Order: sequence, then structure tokens, then C-alpha cells
Amino acid sequence: MEISRRGQTVQASPIRKLKPYADRALEKGIKIYFLNIGDPDIPTPRPILDAVRSFNDRILAYGPAQGFLELRQAIADYFNGYKIPLTSENVIITCGGSEAILFTFAVVGDPGDEIIIPEPFYTNYNGYASLANLKIVPLTLKVENGYRLPSVEEIEAKITRRTKAILLCSPNNPTGTVYSPQELDRVVSIGVKHDLFLIGDEVYKEFIYDGLTHKSILEYEEAKNRVVVVDSISKRFSCCGARIGAVITRNDRVYQAALKFAQARLCPPTIEQKAAIAAYKMGLAYFEPVRQEYERRRDVLYEGLRSIPGLVVGKPQGAFYMSVRLPVKDAERFVIWMLTDFALDKETVMVAPGQGFYSTPGKGLDEIRIAYVLNESDLKRALVIFKAGLEKYKATVEA
Amino acid sequence: MEISRRGQTVQASPIRKLKPYADRALEKGIKIYFLNIGDPDIPTPRPILDAVRSFNDRILAYGPAQGFLELRQAIADYFNGYKIPLTSENVIITCGGSEAILFTFAVVGDPGDEIIIPEPFYTNYNGYASLANLKIVPLTLKVENGYRLPSVEEIEAKITRRTKAILLCSPNNPTGTVYSPQELDRVVSIGVKHDLFLIGDEVYKEFIYDGLTHKSILEYEEAKNRVVVVDSISKRFSCCGARIGAVITRNDRVYQAALKFAQARLCPPTIEQKAAIAAYKMGLAYFEPVRQEYERRRDVLYEGLRSIPGLVVGKPQGAFYMSVRLPVKDAERFVIWMLTDFALDKETVMVAPGQGFYSTPGKGLDEIRIAYVLNESDLKRALVIFKAGLEKYKATVEA
Repeated sequence: MEISRRGQTVQASPIRKLKPYADRALEKGIKIYFLNIGDPDIPTPRPILDAVRSFNDRILAYGPAQGFLELRQAIADYFNGYKIPLTSENVIITCGGSEAILFTFAVVGDPGDEIIIPEPFYTNYNGYASLANLKIVPLTLKVENGYRLPSVEEIEAKITRRTKAILLCSPNNPTGTVYSPQELDRVVSIGVKHDLFLIGDEVYKEFIYDGLTHKSILEYEEAKNRVVVVDSISKRFSCCGARIGAVITRNDRVYQAALKFAQARLCPPTIEQKAAIAAYKMGLAYFEPVRQEYERRRDVLYEGLRSIPGLVVGKPQGAFYMSVRLPVKDAERFVIWMLTDFALDKETVMVAPGQGFYSTPGKGLDEIRIAYVLNESDLKRALVIFKAGLEKYKATVEA
Repeated sequence: MEISRRGQTVQASPIRKLKPYADRALEKGIKIYFLNIGDPDIPTPRPILDAVRSFNDRILAYGPAQGFLELRQAIADYFNGYKIPLTSENVIITCGGSEAILFTFAVVGDPGDEIIIPEPFYTNYNGYASLANLKIVPLTLKVENGYRLPSVEEIEAKITRRTKAILLCSPNNPTGTVYSPQELDRVVSIGVKHDLFLIGDEVYKEFIYDGLTHKSILEYEEAKNRVVVVDSISKRFSCCGARIGAVITRNDRVYQAALKFAQARLCPPTIEQKAAIAAYKMGLAYFEPVRQEYERRRDVLYEGLRSIPGLVVGKPQGAFYMSVRLPVKDAERFVIWMLTDFALDKETVMVAPGQGFYSTPGKGLDEIRIAYVLNESDLKRALVIFKAGLEKYKATVEA
């Protein structure tokens, strides 16, 4: 009686597996600035919390498998606001963006099929690839050129007869890169040429800086039948614990298959769907102050990191992450050391080791991801601590 | 660009696929007594709704991947109340019992591996078997003997080198059967002999009638390392829309693997976990009046069905379902006809066709499942309508 191979080989969350070290630091009375996980400190908007608190049904009952029509329509309207022509019939509500990834993976591929994903990538794609028995084929990007996508030839070199899809996350977790229209054009034309699905993870679409605007792969009419977008309200509305996401597609066969998987799990959470309706009713105006707040933080973090010798850091233009190369051999060891052996006035900083965001063995060993989910003053203090810690680590552990 | 084979072959929910016929009947002004789906009419307990309404965090944030400790402890305490020795370390909170099934399937088997399940069975096991690429090997039971489990030899005949687990749902959906200690002994000893996992779906454990008590497969100390129970608060506390379930196991390797899949999807819903804590704090005393209510309904339904000529119906002792053989050739056609072509004083009844609960082709064609999730007076009225409809259907459509 042995557990499954996928159960044995599925990656432990590289972010969550360090939690015990953080817990022990907290027990010792150390204050930790948590820059390791994308759990924003922006308050959840009042209409969401009010909708939760005013839930008044007599029975907390099942909803429809595809989600409440009012929410599906609200999401379609939201995209229509960006001139993307969707209807409620293109939207399936899921239990978080997580479940949207699972359904999408299961619908585009069978066991052994491949999905090309630029790396570093959102680490949880690994878990879903294991669960659905798909193989992630990484397309390795480089911090030195801001994690831009490579040439058509380099991308095409990854395509095999088992390739079913290319997945693009933009704005990117963990790099913060926003792919340019030219980069998107390149990938869409490869998708059309090689008859592949195009999966878009655009959950950070509202968080774009430097005057850029977000281009969605849903905008490509010539590819409309091959695009599936996985969406989530978690970051958009600072409500990660709500577990409301969506599969969005204009391919009816994809929709119907995802719906059958959705029927098997009955429905997404009823109360948070009502909260999500309230969230979308706030309209696009909600986002601008939040976007500005993240942009200021990005600037604070970028300037602070640039002042630390030996780092390789680009200036990302979206999401709330930066991926950085450190002048250390083993970034995970450094991250743990910061929790176990370092403190400045009883305070330390936690970031995420980069290795977990790569599927190519040996990649990302000297990189970290920093989530700027704390306010400016906390970020500035965290930078002071981080710099002092890195200096001491270099002078003692890796001396 | 074709969707996956699993996406093409996954079963559409046999219950939810008939919803359009119901919608059209409602549009015509017909009142429907819904006995087709296990969505109870028992009010959600006040402490659950109060916990939702008093959610007062500033940020609706992620919780731990395995669920809040307080809820895991509450569930362990609940089982301890039944003399089952569990700790919080044996419990992973999931997004509904549905996700618990998915994680369990993914941990016990790889694509192509087999799980033996007595049929008729909860239809959504099919969806998860498709998603996880497992093969369900049905063990066909018969209404004539109350869907009791067959002999050791008949069960062992289903075991191959790909068999990883036997799944037992007791009290059973869709039959209402409660397996006897002798039947459980039989299956557990087969599991031990053939080194298989034993999966228990015991979400209806509180709904047991005729003075019986529920025996859990968690009680078998000799099998404690091979038992995984999928649990849910949906039926237990009349809150199907909450989406809170659990994987329960004392096998640490199963636990750790399920936890890694859980980490990939970040966490279960935050607010409903707090509601679930409030639910378990009500204590076991909450269940007795609810249990009595369902037992009275079972009696009303059983007596009513017995008075209809030509039915084969046993008296189930648990859950809130009955599976019944009708004197018709095609029960699904009859179920649809009741929605499209029949009404008694502008009222009709909807039940679930039996075929979807079988994976053996051709089985269950003349069976239905009735969920007694309406109050006694509605049930009595539904029985009058059902009887009249069946008579007319027999006299006209299948005459």
C-alpha cells in the first residue's frame, strides 16, 4: 500500500514550507516583515465585508455549478469595460483562481501532455500539473534582461507533439514583468501557427505602472477560440481568503468540459460570490488609488534594493513582486538564516527563495522574490534590516 | 487544437443536466417539488449564520493550507465524541467534501489505477475519477436485497494489480443503506489482506434511523494506516453552500501528500471556516431533533411509495435518500416527462434518474433516487402528484 507517484513527487510549496522557521522566530519574540507571500495589507473594500455581514438567507444552500448569473455578468461587464467582448456564458466561477487553473489544465491536456510556461513562474502551477499529470516545459528567462520573452525560434524549440498550450502570466508573478504587445503578438502567432491553447493568468491586470496599460490575450480576435483566462478576485480586491476565481473562455467546448468538472464539485462558495458581486459593483474607479499605492511601494523597494551592492534587480512594471539575484550561493539558506540567526533590534525580514519558481533543476538558487505587500514605512524599515542581514550573512556564513 | 480526452468523456452531472427542463416548467408557472438533489430545507443553524455576519477582520486574508487549527481541533473533538481517536494533525480542511475526494483520489492512485466502489454510487465520484484519471470499478448492488454488500469472493473478484482502494459510502448516497458492522468487517479484512486503501465517505453519519448507531471505518485500529475519510459539513449542518469539508487520515504519508496538493490551492474559504467552528461548538445535541425530522420523513416517504403499485423499494436506514425501481423502461424519460408534460393542479415533482449513479452501462435505467429534503406536508403532497404522474405515464407514454 504505497501512495501515488504524483503524491510522492508533488512539490511542497516553497513559500509555505519555510513557515516553521518563521513560527519559531515569532516565538522568540522577533518581529518579521513578511515580504514572502502575496497577501496584501490593503484593507478589503467595505462593500465586500458589508455583503458578507448582511448575508440573510435562511439556508446557506448550493448555488449553480457555474456560479451565480449576476456574478458571471458582473465579470463579463468588467471585461467589457476594457473593450473585451465577453458575456456571462463565457464565465465559470471557481473556488479561487486555483481551481480555475486545475480545470483549465484538465481540459487542455491528458496525462503526459505538455504546457510551455516561461520560468520563473507562479510556483503553484507545479502542484496542479502534478495533480492533472501534465508536464510543465519551462522556457527559462533571465533577470539580466528583465525576464523578457525570447525569440520565436527559442519558444518554438520547446514545442513537441505533446504540447497543448502556452501559459503566460502578465503582469507576472514572481517577476513583475508586464509583457509588451509585441511579446504577446509573438506568442499568439505561435499559438495560431502550432494550433495550441493559450492560457492567460492575468489576475494582476489592475496593477500596472509607469503609465502602461494592460493588454489581455482575450483581445486577440484571431485567437479567441484558443484562449482560456484564469482569473481571481483575491489580489484585485484584497480578499485572498474569499476563494473566488473564474475560468473565462469563448471556446464553447472548453467551457462545456470545464462546466462538467465544475458540476462534480457542485458549486463555489455562496456567500463570497455575493461579496464578489458587491466588489465589481464598485466599478473601475476603485482601482486607481490602490494602483498608485503599489506603484509608490514599487519605487521605494526598487530604489532601496538598487542601493545594496551586488544585487541584480530590474524595475518591474506590474503586479506586486520583484525577483532579484543576490550575491549569495544559496538564497534559501540565506532566507532561513534571516529567520533563525539574524535580527536587527529584534526585527527581521522574510522573503521567498527563488528556486521554487523554476522547474529547471539548479535554476534560481541565487534569486529571491519580494512581495511589496506592506506599506511604505514598513518597506523602508524592511530594506534597512534586509541590507544589514545580507551584509552580515556575506561576512560570516559565506565569508 | 482538441480538448483533452478526459474533458470529452467526463460525465455531465445526471442531476444538474435536467435543470433546463425544470427551468422551463417554472417559467410556465408550474410549482415543482424538488426531490432530485440533496439540498436540505432544514434551516442553517443560527451560530453558523451569526459567525458569518460577525466576520470582523479588516482583511479577508489567506488562512493556513491545512485549515485553521481551531477548526481542525473541533473536528478531531467531534470524532473523539464518538470514541474515535483523532488529533488536529489528522485533519486537512478542504473546499467542500468535493475537494477531499479529489485529494484522496490523487493521493491513492496514479492515472490508470483502480478504485472499487459499490454501485449505485454518488455520481460525482465519476467526475473526480475523470479529473484524476482513475478508473472506477463498480461492484453492482441490487435494490431487491436492500443494496447490501456481496460476499468476500464477489468483492475480491474485482481486485486487479491496479486496484488501490475500496470506497464505501455509509450511510449511502443514493440508496440510504447503512452498512452493518459485519459488512464493514468484511471490507476492512479484504483491505488488509490485499493491502489496499480504504476510503470512507461518511458525510451522512448523523442521519441514522431505527435505533442504529453509525460505525465508522476510522474505528478499525488494525486498518488505521490505510483509512482515509472524506468529510463535509454540508449536510451535517444544512449549509451546502459553505464549501467546507475535510480529509481525515492517520496515515502520515497520505496526510503530507494531501497537504502538498492543499498548499497548491492556498487555503479553504476563511469565513466559512469560522462558521464551521461555531457549528461544531453546538455539540452533538444539535443533531437529535434534525435526525428525528429526517426519520419521520423517511417513514412518510416509504409508506407513500409502498402504496404505489409496481415499485421495488426497500426501507433505508440512513442519509436522506431512497433508491427505487419503477415499473417503467426509461426512468430518465419519465423524470423529464413529469417536468414537460405533467402537472396536477399546476404542480409536479422532480426526482433524479438512477442511471447516473451507475458506471456499468445499462444499469439503473428503471431506477430513481428520491431525496427527502422537504417537510412532511410537502412530501405527502409530492407523493400524491408522483403517483398520479406515474399512472398517467404508464397509461399513455408506455402504454
